[in-house]
Amino acid sequence: MAEPVAWILTVGNEILIGRIVNTNASWLAEKLTFMGFRVERIIVVPDSVEDIAEELERAIGRARVVITTGGLGPTYDDRTLEGVARAVRRRLVLNEEAKRMVEEFYSRKGLPLTEDRLKMAMLPEGAEPLPNPVGAAPGSWLEHNNTIIVSLPGVPAEMKEMFSHYVEPRLARIAPRKAVHECGIRVLGVPESSIAPYLRRLARRYPHAYIKSHPKGHETENPVLEIRVLASAETPGEAERICLEVLSELRKIAEELGGAVENA
Amino acid sequence: MAEPVAWILTVGNEILIGRIVNTNASWLAEKLTFMGFRVERIIVVPDSVEDIAEELERAIGRARVVITTGGLGPTYDDRTLEGVARAVRRRLVLNEEAKRMVEEFYSRKGLPLTEDRLKMAMLPEGAEPLPNPVGAAPGSWLEHNNTIIVSLPGVPAEMKEMFSHYVEPRLARIAPRKAVHECGIRVLGVPESSIAPYLRRLARRYPHAYIKSHPKGHETENPVLEIRVLASAETPGEAERICLEVLSELRKIAEELGGAVENA
Repeated sequence: MAEPVAWILTVGNEILIGRIVNTNASWLAEKLTFMGFRVERIIVVPDSVEDIAEELERAIGRARVVITTGGLGPTYDDRTLEGVARAVRRRLVLNEEAKRMVEEFYSRKGLPLTEDRLKMAMLPEGAEPLPNPVGAAPGSWLEHNNTIIVSLPGVPAEMKEMFSHYVEPRLARIAPRKAVHECGIRVLGVPESSIAPYLRRLARRYPHAYIKSHPKGHETENPVLEIRVLASAETPGEAERICLEVLSELRKIAEELGGAVENA
Repeated sequence: MAEPVAWILTVGNEILIGRIVNTNASWLAEKLTFMGFRVERIIVVPDSVEDIAEELERAIGRARVVITTGGLGPTYDDRTLEGVARAVRRRLVLNEEAKRMVEEFYSRKGLPLTEDRLKMAMLPEGAEPLPNPVGAAPGSWLEHNNTIIVSLPGVPAEMKEMFSHYVEPRLARIAPRKAVHECGIRVLGVPESSIAPYLRRLARRYPHAYIKSHPKGHETENPVLEIRVLASAETPGEAERICLEVLSELRKIAEELGGAVENA
């Protein structure tokens, strides 16, 4: 069975002007990969309803799940759920359950439900709010044409907590329960272009292992290559076995080419 | 005049599995923003010719410039220029100038031009190779339907050196020579949802300033907001003036709401 496809959509001008590095996307990408999804796109869009909707429309029917981060807060540029609503051709409506979550959050401090706070309870029609144990803005879970659109806040602590508690367990039910194992070595003294044909052949022999060389030094002056292997299989034991088998092949190749090998 | 649009296309499974954080994209995004471009997309695609071509086809005619990073090396999964060639409907051909660059690079160490090394000199027909002062793989500069497609390696040291030497000076000629100034403050004790309506009004009053609040603490328990302002104008002095004016307005608002203000 082919792995279900996941897309990650990061919303926020602050990423597009280079002020913030997109660590949310790498965190989610790793989680989804190890759950058995194939992450096919990470896309960063501006805080614009049109741009958010454009990318979601592409993802619908193509990705099994899309996770959006950012744009759920109370400020004028938080417009992600408007974009989701437009992409699925639904209205944005006040969600009573989300309203209770927001109301409860502020009432703990004796703060009233203002218009800007209520805005965080406006969800696409038919969406389910996801509790936010850390901050004010609920998330949103929406299914449309066999695509699940999950919207989480951009604040990393909120995003991670909500993913782990309310998204991961539900996505695990549709993930293929594949086991993934990662391993790697460091090869000293071999230019990447010299080991390239061997990696190509090895990748052909092991279709369930993703073999990637990362040049960490100069190509010809004391070259250093970090070679990472990500193997997937039915069971953890099998994934580990494939990983170590590829590693042992890599070790032989590197030594044949006159390289020194270190554990990475 | 509207700012010219830039897209950043990052090629590499290693980003999509969450192993590598996309710092190349944020570095480029900041550079392009400060040059006067509006970065509209950062997209990460797998090492797949189809996926690379799909995103480039969308960018052509829409973005003035697309910068791709990654996938120029000698290994089996380095396929970016195949994707570029497909997107512009041209063949991938051995570029004589690129061949000289690669040949010279390896000959310094007395290494021959193997098939895998020669692969790095295969460019889309009509593309211009960009010298790589750090590593082996040349970059590529190609213009098609008013879109410039620049392809740079994924190794950060190579990418940065090549952008600064061979890309930035040429792009500066088409950038609007706008000045951009950035400033910010830290507001303590005000929930983001309380300052939200003021930010909305301020953003309307200052269309050339991008005002963004980043919650750094809890929304209601000792809230901390970092508010960043990015102002653009014809001259550096004018951009700075707008920035400081917005900052002073922000200061007033924060204090009226009972917050304390710190320099960020």
